[in-house]
Amino acid sequence: MRITLRVIGIGPGNPRQITLQAIDAFADVDVFLLLDKGSEKQSLAALRHEILSRHAPEGHRVVEVADPPRDRNPYDYRSEVTRWHAARAALFTDVLRTELPAGGVAAFLVWGDPALYDSTLRIVDDLSAQPDLDLDVEVIPGVTSASALTAAHRITANRVGEPVHITTGRRLADTPHGADANQIVMLDGDLAFRRTARPDDHIWWGAYVGTDDEILISGRVADVGEQIAAAREEARRRIGWIMDIYLLRKMH
Amino acid sequence: MRITLRVIGIGPGNPRQITLQAIDAFADVDVFLLLDKGSEKQSLAALRHEILSRHAPEGHRVVEVADPPRDRNPYDYRSEVTRWHAARAALFTDVLRTELPAGGVAAFLVWGDPALYDSTLRIVDDLSAQPDLDLDVEVIPGVTSASALTAAHRITANRVGEPVHITTGRRLADTPHGADANQIVMLDGDLAFRRTARPDDHIWWGAYVGTDDEILISGRVADVGEQIAAAREEARRRIGWIMDIYLLRKMH
Repeated sequence: MRITLRVIGIGPGNPRQITLQAIDAFADVDVFLLLDKGSEKQSLAALRHEILSRHAPEGHRVVEVADPPRDRNPYDYRSEVTRWHAARAALFTDVLRTELPAGGVAAFLVWGDPALYDSTLRIVDDLSAQPDLDLDVEVIPGVTSASALTAAHRITANRVGEPVHITTGRRLADTPHGADANQIVMLDGDLAFRRTARPDDHIWWGAYVGTDDEILISGRVADVGEQIAAAREEARRRIGWIMDIYLLRKMH
Repeated sequence: MRITLRVIGIGPGNPRQITLQAIDAFADVDVFLLLDKGSEKQSLAALRHEILSRHAPEGHRVVEVADPPRDRNPYDYRSEVTRWHAARAALFTDVLRTELPAGGVAAFLVWGDPALYDSTLRIVDDLSAQPDLDLDVEVIPGVTSASALTAAHRITANRVGEPVHITTGRRLADTPHGADANQIVMLDGDLAFRRTARPDDHIWWGAYVGTDDEILISGRVADVGEQIAAAREEARRRIGWIMDIYLLRKMH
């Protein structure tokens, strides 16, 4: 069964931060596949609904696919991951065969850009290996949350000629000396910079960047570190979830 | 004199890779400032003209500003850079005062995203320091050439949980061990990976990504390294200039 599978970056949260190419890519989609990770928050779902209702073609269908159950603490980690990936691929294969005509087009919408800390392209790889699917895969890039953060603060990611290191909160302490001049830190529920940064380093932090709830704080780590932690905790309680990112710059 | 200065990312080359937010930001612009670096190529200028003619308001003006002359091999490097920045800021201040009404809006268009290896925000910083200008600065993020590259190759930038290091050809050899799992290399006129990568490392290379001239090559460095060098040289001669980028991944 021949199918076009389109992975579309829709930007990091502001519905106007979607590209014309992404909107073009909506035009002939038969089915939008929404990956329900269980953790996605109501306001993000509402934003995605707004994007679909504004740009998706009349009569498009939306199918929510829940991740199959997974043992997070298995006896044999590797074989459990393999089993879970296979179960997920079988589930999506079933959805595609049920919901699509031959030659049809299915699309995944991805927050930000599909290349950065997102699992959709890994699912697509698993689907490509299915013997009874003949997939034509297309990927549409999107604005990253890193670009939205630096734009909101009106700063560059790098000083002249310097590298930029993108990492996660969990890995932040592992960044070697010499790679840490400018770090963009994602997926950090614990504000790990408080353990790795020097007091004089500079931080530009943002939450819900580009949305109506946007919060921006910047300054010397020693001056604003605790302020960021307090603002993050307050917002997480008030709104019920948090999506944040920061740029950490070593000062010479 | 109060002025709004807008720095607008327009994506890495494909005119459809511009966001709705960028198009919104064109609407009330009085003057588009084009920074003529002398090095910009005719086809890029034509792409930007296409974007302006499609999205900019009726009656908008375009002013090309040439960089002031600069001594690239001065006796005193630091003072020459300071002098040159001041000359550039004075030139732009003059243009803004001549071309704009009070309360007017001027815009810079930036290829890709304004945060990554682009000097426009540094010019804006110099302008903000001018005593007779009262600037309201706005920055609109854009799709990066890194995202366009990974989308064209239909790959992720990182394997699960790994960091991504963005650097230049000149700095590639300086990336420390432990930061080099996934490197996105920009501004590399010399394909420096040929001196830093191991034969089994994987490279995804792209030139003119997202445009009609797009060339994509990927594979083991040992298998495709020389093929990339040859394709790059052939394209540079045929088209007259080249704009390329690559992702280099260490294989375990």
